[in-house]
Amino acid sequence: MKLDITHAIKDVRDTHPLVHCITNYVTVNDVANSILAIGGSPIMADALEEVEAVVSKSKALVLNIGTLNENTVKAMILAGKTANAKNIPVILDPVGAGFTPYRTEAAKKILDEVRVGIIRGNLSEIASLAGIKSANKGVDASDSITDSQNLVADINPASIAKNLAQKYSTVIAITGQTDIISNGNSCYKIRNGHPLLSKVTGTGCMATGLIAAFAEASSAAITDLNTDAAGAAGATLISAAVAGIASMGIAGEIAFAKAGNDGTGSFHVAIIDALSRMNDVELQSHLKLEEV
Amino acid sequence: MKLDITHAIKDVRDTHPLVHCITNYVTVNDVANSILAIGGSPIMADALEEVEAVVSKSKALVLNIGTLNENTVKAMILAGKTANAKNIPVILDPVGAGFTPYRTEAAKKILDEVRVGIIRGNLSEIASLAGIKSANKGVDASDSITDSQNLVADINPASIAKNLAQKYSTVIAITGQTDIISNGNSCYKIRNGHPLLSKVTGTGCMATGLIAAFAEASSAAITDLNTDAAGAAGATLISAAVAGIASMGIAGEIAFAKAGNDGTGSFHVAIIDALSRMNDVELQSHLKLEEV
Amino acid sequence: MKLDITHAIKDVRDTHPLVHCITNYVTVNDVANSILAIGGSPIMADALEEVEAVVSKSKALVLNIGTLNENTVKAMILAGKTANAKNIPVILDPVGAGFTPYRTEAAKKILDEVRVGIIRGNLSEIASLAGIKSANKGVDASDSITDSQNLVADINPASIAKNLAQKYSTVIAITGQTDIISNGNSCYKIRNGHPLLSKVTGTGCMATGLIAAFAEASSAAITDLNTDAAGAAGATLISAAVAGIASMGIAGEIAFAKAGNDGTGSFHVAIIDALSRMNDVELQSHLKLEEV
Repeated sequence: MKLDITHAIKDVRDTHPLVHCITNYVTVNDVANSILAIGGSPIMADALEEVEAVVSKSKALVLNIGTLNENTVKAMILAGKTANAKNIPVILDPVGAGFTPYRTEAAKKILDEVRVGIIRGNLSEIASLAGIKSANKGVDASDSITDSQNLVADINPASIAKNLAQKYSTVIAITGQTDIISNGNSCYKIRNGHPLLSKVTGTGCMATGLIAAFAEASSAAITDLNTDAAGAAGATLISAAVAGIASMGIAGEIAFAKAGNDGTGSFHVAIIDALSRMNDVELQSHLKLEEV
Repeated sequence: MKLDITHAIKDVRDTHPLVHCITNYVTVNDVANSILAIGGSPIMADALEEVEAVVSKSKALVLNIGTLNENTVKAMILAGKTANAKNIPVILDPVGAGFTPYRTEAAKKILDEVRVGIIRGNLSEIASLAGIKSANKGVDASDSITDSQNLVADINPASIAKNLAQKYSTVIAITGQTDIISNGNSCYKIRNGHPLLSKVTGTGCMATGLIAAFAEASSAAITDLNTDAAGAAGATLISAAVAGIASMGIAGEIAFAKAGNDGTGSFHVAIIDALSRMNDVELQSHLKLEEV
Repeated sequence: MKLDITHAIKDVRDTHPLVHCITNYVTVNDVANSILAIGGSPIMADALEEVEAVVSKSKALVLNIGTLNENTVKAMILAGKTANAKNIPVILDPVGAGFTPYRTEAAKKILDEVRVGIIRGNLSEIASLAGIKSANKGVDASDSITDSQNLVADINPASIAKNLAQKYSTVIAITGQTDIISNGNSCYKIRNGHPLLSKVTGTGCMATGLIAAFAEASSAAITDLNTDAAGAAGATLISAAVAGIASMGIAGEIAFAKAGNDGTGSFHVAIIDALSRMNDVELQSHLKLEEV
């Protein structure tokens, strides 16, 4: 299988895909601004009364359970089913799955009722969806895209990703010091990013938002998304996952070079700066991607 | 009619008006910080149990439907009626009206039950309140204060503003590449701002918050607000709308000159910087205002 | 009694205590990022279904009533009782107490049902819990850590703090131009901080979050917290309150020196920068602390 993300950013900046996010109130502003920065058009809406109307006009749907409650889980499932009916890709961020039973069950309920195209989480979160217990410390660790892997170093992340991707016919993206992306068949590793990304809340949520912005731009020609993860749709979704995670990691590298020594406030601002200035040439020149 | 905004900022900085905001959780932090930056004192409160008590002590009320739900609409109407009873100006930001029926209906329900002194939105949102369909793309476009006008270029924004202002005895502010402000009688255009403002979420919401901060400072002497948009109250409210929209646009210009090339993260920070440093001399020297 | 905060920051950075926050949606991102900046690990969770599970894994619990509603008050009390049962310190931020009856009653209800180890507020908020009426202007003033003291200048803050600390067997921290911290027996004053801190929303909430991060690190050896404010637990909690308030004030001083003239946006970013770079030597060299 051949990935193609050589013009991923140009595609987003040309088409400004509308990305519907049902997400947590902690990092929602950063998610919206990172989607805008890469060229997408975010809309945050979680009222049961309008999620069907919103997702129907959107090009991708993000379901992020960072501050879930009874109503948002209902809205997520309704929006997800609507997206499925219209072949709009659904991206799940199972923040804190494995940390509390409520979150693990909410993530699994979504997966039972909605066909999800991509799941992005850290190793603890993804492992919990696979039924593997790990030393998950909290959503802060869960949210990290750099330092969580050592929590469950005795298990093989690539195997977990492949098996879970096959089980749910989805793309699994495990972010950490090394990122793992698999559609159940192919498997890729990305070695971009910077440890300081774990010291700003929401960098994982932002990566998920970026994946969603790329999901539509990459999948404009796909008519039946989410159904065959090893086929054309899967190839497209895995490209979106790679583009989203790589752009976030590279933004972290650029931001650290510019502002890392100033502190995490300036670093946070510089991440958005880097995303807003990034183009495909810069992405390709920094990209540390390999098939495994 | 004669606008007077020559000492608008000094008035806010002297009186620190308390501005009660019932607003969305996406941009709420920026709205609070922009009100603080211009000299006001924000209080965000949306519980049905306390909105009457909060608005009763406030000098202006912002109703922003960016992430509305059943409870917040109820709280908005209760707060709005309380404000009306006490002649406290109400400023409505109908985020996403026209994009989903739920939002359009919520905005209209508020307008049916509450006398609103100023409505600020982009052309799609305002047109939807006037019953005109447009190519509204989402709240991101809705939130833009620079690029939305071309969506419905075949209709005349000034006519829509005037007619809607007369219908609801209110001031209408349509923000876009050129801003239109009308109280149903007079009509003004503002040509400040910068296209990059549409790449940071919440700049529209922030403009609405600024208008509210100016609303009280401008209307200290008015005893019966909102009832005669063409009279003294109307003159005062239109001044507040002009001051709020102009200060936001000018902050965008200053921020772009300082940080636009760094990226949208730095630009975002620089907007708040510019607002916090702005004075009336700077506002007047940048102001591109004309009566039409 | 002898305070010891000489290695407070090192302790937090070594142990990364998990801090569970049930807090408002206005400043939640800043609270999370300030806890991360000082070395802690924040988790924001307010669903009744999971707060017991979350707090049980945490080292401290923050209850901040900045945007309370019926559900969050219930979640706060459930989380607080769970924390009590496990000797996890509870830190209350009674945002806006005294401003609306709803907030005053919510704070008192929490205090009736939960043993709180530390209460941090401005003078108006703390005075309202003591049954003293004051000229509270709103949560913005309430949120200020610099300018609220003159509102009720005719009453003695140190007396209020001592009496209230004794009544609830807790530590009281009144932040303002001069901060007062008392456990009912000893009383300390801190003279750090900068007036510009009152022009950024959430600096009070951030101080409360920092106190919580220090609470666990300081109290690792305490087995029965909250029960004897004048004893070992009290000594530990008063150290956490001093470390949290001092680090916030000193971050304000450093941020003002670096970015104060740029405006409040840059100042806001520089506060997080300063917290993320702070160490115990810097804290001690800036500290203006005296026992009274």
